[in-house]
Amino acid sequence: MVTEEQVRESLQGILVPGVKRSLTDMNLVRDIALDEGKVGVTLASSALNEGAQDWLRSKVKDAVGGLNGGTTTEVTFIDVKATEVNEIGSVIAVMSGKGGVGKSLVASLTAVALKRQGYRVGILDADITGPSIPKMLGVRERPVGSNTGIMPVISRSGIEMISFNLILEQEEDAVIWRGPLISKAITQFWEEVVWGKLDYLVVDLPPGTADAPLTVMQTLPVSGVIIVSTPQDLTNMIVKKAVSMARKMDKPILGVVENMSFLYVPEIDKKIELFGRSRGDEMAQAAGAPLLGTLPIDPELARLCDEGNIERYSSDAFASMTANLAGALKMPDAGNSGGR
Amino acid sequence: MVTEEQVRESLQGILVPGVKRSLTDMNLVRDIALDEGKVGVTLASSALNEGAQDWLRSKVKDAVGGLNGGTTTEVTFIDVKATEVNEIGSVIAVMSGKGGVGKSLVASLTAVALKRQGYRVGILDADITGPSIPKMLGVRERPVGSNTGIMPVISRSGIEMISFNLILEQEEDAVIWRGPLISKAITQFWEEVVWGKLDYLVVDLPPGTADAPLTVMQTLPVSGVIIVSTPQDLTNMIVKKAVSMARKMDKPILGVVENMSFLYVPEIDKKIELFGRSRGDEMAQAAGAPLLGTLPIDPELARLCDEGNIERYSSDAFASMTANLAGALKMPDAGNSGGR
Repeated sequence: MVTEEQVRESLQGILVPGVKRSLTDMNLVRDIALDEGKVGVTLASSALNEGAQDWLRSKVKDAVGGLNGGTTTEVTFIDVKATEVNEIGSVIAVMSGKGGVGKSLVASLTAVALKRQGYRVGILDADITGPSIPKMLGVRERPVGSNTGIMPVISRSGIEMISFNLILEQEEDAVIWRGPLISKAITQFWEEVVWGKLDYLVVDLPPGTADAPLTVMQTLPVSGVIIVSTPQDLTNMIVKKAVSMARKMDKPILGVVENMSFLYVPEIDKKIELFGRSRGDEMAQAAGAPLLGTLPIDPELARLCDEGNIERYSSDAFASMTANLAGALKMPDAGNSGGR
Repeated sequence: MVTEEQVRESLQGILVPGVKRSLTDMNLVRDIALDEGKVGVTLASSALNEGAQDWLRSKVKDAVGGLNGGTTTEVTFIDVKATEVNEIGSVIAVMSGKGGVGKSLVASLTAVALKRQGYRVGILDADITGPSIPKMLGVRERPVGSNTGIMPVISRSGIEMISFNLILEQEEDAVIWRGPLISKAITQFWEEVVWGKLDYLVVDLPPGTADAPLTVMQTLPVSGVIIVSTPQDLTNMIVKKAVSMARKMDKPILGVVENMSFLYVPEIDKKIELFGRSRGDEMAQAAGAPLLGTLPIDPELARLCDEGNIERYSSDAFASMTANLAGALKMPDAGNSGGR
């Protein structure tokens, strides 16, 4: 006689078409019933079209049927909303107020850092009109889905993501939309994407303090905000607007990352402060949060971003940011989280 | 007997309180009537509070009365909408789609270049949630006004400007608004600000292709768009969205400015392409418009921006951009424009 535990384990190995994560990780297994040698498996049909359902039905039958030399298996699909399937530990919003300071860079690096530590991570690209995430992570697939939801796409290292640029015909197409449509798109990314089980969902916000950040802070259970700044005084004035918004919306600030802090020129072994002296500590103080890192202007990093290879980046500055991030998130020991 | 011409000339010297531009430049003189030794001057009261009206009344009486040894002068104020007072030659929108590429920098430099050539120039800062213009030009005054309009503020070199940051209590206050309010603010900057006579109004757009640029392109008579990019491939993808928007809205693209093209390190006499090789020509081709300039990353320029002294900037790159801009705008010979 097979046990529920054995059945559940056998489902671990079945990857959901499109996302390449297992049925259990995607939280699609809704029920396992054992009855006189018969096994009934109920799966959520969320975002699965008919072909995907047929494929999964046969894979589940094979896996469970193989357990004890021919258990009869019945697979039933039920409609479940994406929001009921999703189990997301923490939602972290990356914001700045100012454009071009490296929000998408910091959002991606945050996701990469958490993924490398063994957590299950997703990125929700809330910059609908200027999305950078897919390009940085080298993802170009179109998300698959059905009338019950959308599947995220998966990066090389296994980070789930959704971005409006994945939905456009051409990545250079403009989304000429007013606020209500922008907000609706973000809400759909939250409510209709089947994220499954995630330890962290990183949200990349567009510049400004208007519709997109407002919708994210009002609709998503944001547990913390990472603020991104650069050394320029001009930038800092605008970044402080973002700090002020996070405060008004009662969202705790986890920390500050200063980007483009300096440029190291190896020929003269010198750090040049291109945009003035670092103001990271000042900004951290203004935000009442730790300085998580100061990232240099790094031509190598710019190249990796352009190539879609940000997941390959490593540097002392990034290692230090990763360590500080772990502290700020008060994370359990990496590897003990049940993440993979 | 005084002539209308003499009266008009005498009004040239009277500066409107708050803007430090003359009554005639602000286009507030609506009528001059001569009748048997009496002179009647009708002024628009737009944006002038009672104190300002009284002050102007007495200044006009002094100036006209002094013309011919005691002409009796009557000054009448009439309510005229700002839109009727304003005579604006060309509206140039500076856009990019991407944040932080230097839109405000290019908008300011465009205004400075035109001003130095003798044109009457204003800047409308349409970035309501992240306005940079006042800081770059070192302006902190609050705009004055009345219930019939708002006066712009004036930079050291005489550039008119309006920005939401001039209206905030604290420059770091966040404007947490959804699109309709953002659009309303921009529309007010166009309809209720008394710009007077301008040769060029430069509009600094926020990132994205949502409410703000849409409102500017639908509400203002934009005669041309300047596109700002940087060498990064990632940036270019998003900048092309702005190009696509300008096309869809039937707005001609005047040219492309590539910012942060390179860094010159004097110690090694070398140009470093920090964000990859220049793609200015490529972007210009994609936009179907000339490349107006490639600006380097210049720590001196960053400093001037932080200090509010961008009007003092000069460099070879800026000189070349100025010359190309003149060509793109097909400007009449500088100095012959009647501008001051």
